[in-house]
Amino acid sequence: MATCGLIEYESASPEVRAVYDDIRAARGTDYINNFWKALAHDPPLLRRTWESIKAVMTPGALDPLVKELLYVAVSATNQCGYCIASHTASARKAGMSDTMFAELMAVVGMANETNRLASGYQVEIDERFRV
Amino acid sequence: MATCGLIEYESASPEVRAVYDDIRAARGTDYINNFWKALAHDPPLLRRTWESIKAVMTPGALDPLVKELLYVAVSATNQCGYCIASHTASARKAGMSDTMFAELMAVVGMANETNRLASGYQVEIDERFRV
Amino acid sequence: MATCGLIEYESASPEVRAVYDDIRAARGTDYINNFWKALAHDPPLLRRTWESIKAVMTPGALDPLVKELLYVAVSATNQCGYCIASHTASARKAGMSDTMFAELMAVVGMANETNRLASGYQVEIDERFRV
Amino acid sequence: MATCGLIEYESASPEVRAVYDDIRAARGTDYINNFWKALAHDPPLLRRTWESIKAVMTPGALDPLVKELLYVAVSATNQCGYCIASHTASARKAGMSDTMFAELMAVVGMANETNRLASGYQVEIDERFRV
Amino acid sequence: MATCGLIEYESASPEVRAVYDDIRAARGTDYINNFWKALAHDPPLLRRTWESIKAVMTPGALDPLVKELLYVAVSATNQCGYCIASHTASARKAGMSDTMFAELMAVVGMANETNRLASGYQVEIDERFRV
Amino acid sequence: MATCGLIEYESASPEVRAVYDDIRAARGTDYINNFWKALAHDPPLLRRTWESIKAVMTPGALDPLVKELLYVAVSATNQCGYCIASHTASARKAGMSDTMFAELMAVVGMANETNRLASGYQVEIDERFRV
Repeated sequence: MATCGLIEYESASPEVRAVYDDIRAARGTDYINNFWKALAHDPPLLRRTWESIKAVMTPGALDPLVKELLYVAVSATNQCGYCIASHTASARKAGMSDTMFAELMAVVGMANETNRLASGYQVEIDERFRV
Repeated sequence: MATCGLIEYESASPEVRAVYDDIRAARGTDYINNFWKALAHDPPLLRRTWESIKAVMTPGALDPLVKELLYVAVSATNQCGYCIASHTASARKAGMSDTMFAELMAVVGMANETNRLASGYQVEIDERFRV
Repeated sequence: MATCGLIEYESASPEVRAVYDDIRAARGTDYINNFWKALAHDPPLLRRTWESIKAVMTPGALDPLVKELLYVAVSATNQCGYCIASHTASARKAGMSDTMFAELMAVVGMANETNRLASGYQVEIDERFRV
Repeated sequence: MATCGLIEYESASPEVRAVYDDIRAARGTDYINNFWKALAHDPPLLRRTWESIKAVMTPGALDPLVKELLYVAVSATNQCGYCIASHTASARKAGMSDTMFAELMAVVGMANETNRLASGYQVEIDERFRV
Repeated sequence: MATCGLIEYESASPEVRAVYDDIRAARGTDYINNFWKALAHDPPLLRRTWESIKAVMTPGALDPLVKELLYVAVSATNQCGYCIASHTASARKAGMSDTMFAELMAVVGMANETNRLASGYQVEIDERFRV
Repeated sequence: MATCGLIEYESASPEVRAVYDDIRAARGTDYINNFWKALAHDPPLLRRTWESIKAVMTPGALDPLVKELLYVAVSATNQCGYCIASHTASARKAGMSDTMFAELMAVVGMANETNRLASGYQVEIDERFRV
């Protein structure tokens, strides 16, 4: 349960229901996950976040699977339990195989390691990498 | 300059030179970036990190471009200036277009936002996302 | 239970009891939350942390509610489950309404997003923002 | 300069100019800060981020000064140099006094300290703080 | 249970068993903790991580207890629940007393506090600290 | 220069001078580093932080060198440029050799890597590590 409880479809306002309906349609499932039911306490945030997610995660120069992998990479770096669980599930649904997951984790681990080596050793940015 | 200065090829030990040679061969350039020249103060770390990077960033179920995008996503999340600069350069070299970069940033931004909404609202993990 | 267990009032040393008494008096409740019962394993840390909290959270140019909101913002950014739970409770006690909580979360989310856009795009600090 | 350079008003597309015009009008100044000139490489991101910022930072149950303080708190916690500089400036413009800034920093420091004490001591959430 | 479940010795491949055997020998116990059983889904990652841990945590200029304390300091800073729990246990096994743990936590807390004071106050690096 | 400038000894209030004097005496040097000159804008914070640092960094069950290593580990993990620079200098003054620094960085790197592997693989805490 979230801070203020979860808002189910049945008890939701028309404004919230409209977003839930759109989530259901976009995902081809009746299931609304807890994240949205918690945000529903703030209908404008719910709508804004959902519209942004739709815009951001849509197929573009990067395909949806890559975008889900990026989402998991950020969530694991931030140690966000909910986001790791939900976006690992989304990534699998988008086609992430076990091998892809393993490679994803290996890159995330390495990047977190070398980020600290670079800062701890106080490495200056190479002239050629400056923008 | 890094904490202990940068070790140039000319003044490097044979052990360090061997790694530098391998970096040059693998990347098809004589340029060794500052990160490696700083790690060279610890030759076993230099070798281990380079061997790991080679193993991790090699083409696999995920292609090298996707892996570089993941590296940038982690580095931006951690706010590591050196790593953002160097891996954005690597990603471009691996084929990242301006549009891909823009989509990458949009996902990284959204993920960092929703990570905090999920934790701040104390959203519990849905039963179906549990492993 | 914390790493070394929680120290209850009954089994606490006089030094720890003195801090517990002060917490109770300051908060107008007999309840001592787990955080303090864990720190009690290190009485000087317990006292120092409590004295600092009292000094920092006292009404000043910023009122206690604003300070609690800031505490929640930091805790959500760091994804500290205990601190989010306890300081969200404190903030409500200090007068945080549902709407305030929603606005707080919206700001925290946006700030975490734009922090990464700024670093990922490697935006240089404007001359006029330099101090 | 940002990753892809900064886009000035004069060389901006009509789509970008429309956002710049809105920023100028909303802030009562001709100055567009670097953050927006960098995001302008991705006009939909520019518009979405600006619209979200406007919605989020508008006076509500929390006044704009408090929202700017929260923004600084998150940015300092994330160690985002650009965001600390720009939002400290915004907070001052919104009325933050030296004393308020000092109190803000004191709270941010304490919260970052106790976040780690809570997690390091593995403190369990009190039953009464559970939601 | 981890994302893909935990791989027990009995059902492990020879490649994974070889690492498990080495872990058991190095630690003088039959117990393999969950971290390794999860990584076993990616045998090269399992081997690489274990070999790196062995190389890094071995007695050197810093003794193993100090290295475990450093591991806990990083894990508490990152708020990684698993790592705090497992490395606090390792540190105790390596000789960490209650007093050492208390001092460790006090330093970790202070460092996390002053890190944000330094960045929030935008303190410039002293000339003499530059490398 | 910090947000509000640096306060030099000559222009400091008696309250601030008293802390500066104590820093000089404790460190056996006339040099006051920028961090303190920035905090001096908030004399109670200056005093509280200095008193806490003295109490925390004093020789105890852990010696001052180990405490400085821990400080660097946290600062590198948080990517705090100022703190990495100043505490690396302090650690060297306290006796950190090049080899110790190298081992410190190797542990910090590994810990940051495995923290994310543990969270990304959603590894559950072993029963025996639970407190």
